[in-house]
Amino acid sequence: MYRVDLNCDMGESYGVYRIGQDEQVLDIVTSANIACGFHAGDPATMRRTVHLALERGVAIGAHPGLPDLVGFGRRQFEITPREAYDMTIYQIGSLDAFARASGVQLQHVKPHGALYNMAAVNRKLAEAIAEAVYDLDGRMMLFGLASSELVKAGERIGLVTAHEVFADRTYQADGTLTPRNHAQALITDPEQSVHQVLRLITEGRVRSLTGEDVSLQADTICLHGDGAHALAFAQRIREALEAEDILVEAFHLQEA
Amino acid sequence: MYRVDLNCDMGESYGVYRIGQDEQVLDIVTSANIACGFHAGDPATMRRTVHLALERGVAIGAHPGLPDLVGFGRRQFEITPREAYDMTIYQIGSLDAFARASGVQLQHVKPHGALYNMAAVNRKLAEAIAEAVYDLDGRMMLFGLASSELVKAGERIGLVTAHEVFADRTYQADGTLTPRNHAQALITDPEQSVHQVLRLITEGRVRSLTGEDVSLQADTICLHGDGAHALAFAQRIREALEAEDILVEAFHLQEA
Amino acid sequence: MYRVDLNCDMGESYGVYRIGQDEQVLDIVTSANIACGFHAGDPATMRRTVHLALERGVAIGAHPGLPDLVGFGRRQFEITPREAYDMTIYQIGSLDAFARASGVQLQHVKPHGALYNMAAVNRKLAEAIAEAVYDLDGRMMLFGLASSELVKAGERIGLVTAHEVFADRTYQADGTLTPRNHAQALITDPEQSVHQVLRLITEGRVRSLTGEDVSLQADTICLHGDGAHALAFAQRIREALEAEDILVEAFHLQEA
Amino acid sequence: MYRVDLNCDMGESYGVYRIGQDEQVLDIVTSANIACGFHAGDPATMRRTVHLALERGVAIGAHPGLPDLVGFGRRQFEITPREAYDMTIYQIGSLDAFARASGVQLQHVKPHGALYNMAAVNRKLAEAIAEAVYDLDGRMMLFGLASSELVKAGERIGLVTAHEVFADRTYQADGTLTPRNHAQALITDPEQSVHQVLRLITEGRVRSLTGEDVSLQADTICLHGDGAHALAFAQRIREALEAEDILVEAFHLQEA
Repeated sequence: MYRVDLNCDMGESYGVYRIGQDEQVLDIVTSANIACGFHAGDPATMRRTVHLALERGVAIGAHPGLPDLVGFGRRQFEITPREAYDMTIYQIGSLDAFARASGVQLQHVKPHGALYNMAAVNRKLAEAIAEAVYDLDGRMMLFGLASSELVKAGERIGLVTAHEVFADRTYQADGTLTPRNHAQALITDPEQSVHQVLRLITEGRVRSLTGEDVSLQADTICLHGDGAHALAFAQRIREALEAEDILVEAFHLQEA
Repeated sequence: MYRVDLNCDMGESYGVYRIGQDEQVLDIVTSANIACGFHAGDPATMRRTVHLALERGVAIGAHPGLPDLVGFGRRQFEITPREAYDMTIYQIGSLDAFARASGVQLQHVKPHGALYNMAAVNRKLAEAIAEAVYDLDGRMMLFGLASSELVKAGERIGLVTAHEVFADRTYQADGTLTPRNHAQALITDPEQSVHQVLRLITEGRVRSLTGEDVSLQADTICLHGDGAHALAFAQRIREALEAEDILVEAFHLQEA
Repeated sequence: MYRVDLNCDMGESYGVYRIGQDEQVLDIVTSANIACGFHAGDPATMRRTVHLALERGVAIGAHPGLPDLVGFGRRQFEITPREAYDMTIYQIGSLDAFARASGVQLQHVKPHGALYNMAAVNRKLAEAIAEAVYDLDGRMMLFGLASSELVKAGERIGLVTAHEVFADRTYQADGTLTPRNHAQALITDPEQSVHQVLRLITEGRVRSLTGEDVSLQADTICLHGDGAHALAFAQRIREALEAEDILVEAFHLQEA
Repeated sequence: MYRVDLNCDMGESYGVYRIGQDEQVLDIVTSANIACGFHAGDPATMRRTVHLALERGVAIGAHPGLPDLVGFGRRQFEITPREAYDMTIYQIGSLDAFARASGVQLQHVKPHGALYNMAAVNRKLAEAIAEAVYDLDGRMMLFGLASSELVKAGERIGLVTAHEVFADRTYQADGTLTPRNHAQALITDPEQSVHQVLRLITEGRVRSLTGEDVSLQADTICLHGDGAHALAFAQRIREALEAEDILVEAFHLQEA
């Protein structure tokens, strides 16, 4: 029987500013990546989001980002591996505190936005982030782009990793995501997305934009909760997985 | 035999900005209150300060403050008890992560500046902060102004508390500190300071500005590391304590 | 013939975060108070909002707030008159630069949230803010709560002021707004609001919650653009004014 | 007779944090680049620094940087030309307000750190910054690395520019600065520095690290005020220039 985890970024509101549809998304996904106050999120939002996830039995992970609220952590900037290590420790710790105050452990860490993208290709940054997770608590999993430097660094240091694939993004022949500025970067047809996801889970392969088949491990699927159609799209993916008798659950449940 | 802990705020540098003389102060004090990024401090500074304290065997505590870097956390502002709870959880967690990554536990939490002052007199804020510490890890101690609402709230909820007294501040008849804007708020004569500290430890009393004796418990003494004479002042206090055979040590050592 | 200005806070989005319905509100109001980056707003939002207001012929003002993005500038905090002066100068300057780059002058300054409320009752803060406006450009108007310390300070220093009244708030016998935590603080019935506004403009009086008539000068009416009914409410006020042949226009048009 | 301007970055303190020796440097330089709150500086520091410069007759310029206080604006990050435009407008405006409140005009704009370095080589960013300066006030000068994209963009749009050279940095054969991570990036011998500066002013040439002569226009020399020897170094440069009867003055004086 096949298994997969569904994850979504959330807790990205800030003060009076609201973003995302966290409550609804939590009924669909099995793992929640919760922002930690650098690219988004604030202490009150973090507490509320941890509670919401707990109520719905969704596993919790830290979602550290670059210190760039106005840019939502999407702008790459020059950081040293040491800076990546420090900002990862700090942010995991802040979220972990809300989790511990609620009697729950963090399942995973998934970097956000530009930090995620940099760690996918920059070995030294990837190692710094993996080291931060390991130094803090080696039982936490590390989520990263499938086949990226980040998951490789996690595996080298001894972390359990989850290779992440995307339901709504196309792939290139080398297994990387088609850049967002490319006209065909996004998959907008739900059925094409369902097909891509099912094939990734059952065959471990994805058809690239240029027609080649690429092998990728699909441990967890990234869904989105913002935008008008995101919720219906995510719901459709989940239903298709269940219709195929694919077990949809978080990793901490598998350990039990 | 008498015992006392000496504490100092530190890790209050930020980026390229340097403040305090942490390395030298760490040779004098037994407990370090480390800033957590809201009123001062940044992830790199927090990591370095944790390491410095560890090297010198100084106990580590979190020093959460108001989110007001430009005001150094010294300006009181309207926060709800819930906001106090959330910002305390967040900041303790961030520092705790650096401590755990270094294999050490936090000994205590001491709020900073305006948060400390508000929690000394506002029962609801005091309770929110005590609850945050307790929810996160009930083994951590809570440091607060001697006889304040903060230590009382800590004791009610079941935390071990430390009543803090000041070496370089004068007291009023009701046991509170003379406000900083008062001409005689500060004690600048080291010998007067030594006398005040020794009497607090051995008799549990302090002479107020208006001449009355006030009973105060003196578990830990706040020293300062910034300013030209602060270091010599702190050194003088320590020497005077040792000359009187008063045991100067942190609380976690007492538990061993 | 009676005249009145209608103003609304706007440009309060931040990065990816969107708040308010600025485009629609700009079709209703005659003066726009644009956030300057401290309590809300960012440089891109400021530029866009200035352009939107210009396109619709709406007069532009600076809307400086406390440096508290996570609290949206609504939490009072201890600042000195000097700090109020400095943050006002800084924020007006930043918005004025976008206005000048578009070839337009600022009509007015209206403090935001907690800064507005503190300046309404604290004479020294009021004078500091008025002085900042005057020092920067004495031709700018100062908007403040009708009969408040802020408009009085503006008048003393020689600024043209606008006494502001609220369409959706009730008043107390002393002419101040009923605090928000009071059950009857808000007026939710559009017709009651229309009645209050028309009477303020034509008679210069408002009926307080406790039944007394209070004299207030009504130069500009504060409307709101956030919330489901805010837009319809604001539209209703404008229509009622026009139905009574009250001239609705900004102040800079009156100077022409 | 030769002429040159001496400039220094200043006003880079923040809240309780002090950096630089602005008062002493102001006795040496003729132009002050004042930080605007993004990479350093705060409203109070900006006001004080403007006043200090005015008292000493030193010309004032805005020193906009990236929004990265913890990195002091030294970390390059991905920004669009539009973002560069917006952050430049915002920051110039904020400083200009303090200047206008003191009755003085800004002489110039000089980007800081990573923004300066990116604008030196990235034509689109350079054009966006030059356009911001021009849109705000075409009488302001633009300071940039000699022969850089930034000064070229300024000249194309019609701004008066100042080509900047460095007293304490070595040059490469293509006229760019030797990167800081190179062992010979810095000139630590005051006499070597004096020689480089005098030759740049009188011959318009500098000897590169690899021995080639490079032609560079030297309108203004960047000095530094932080670090133990910076002040003596800057003083030595100024004395050497005066000993050679080179006129040391700001540009606004030349216009008179």
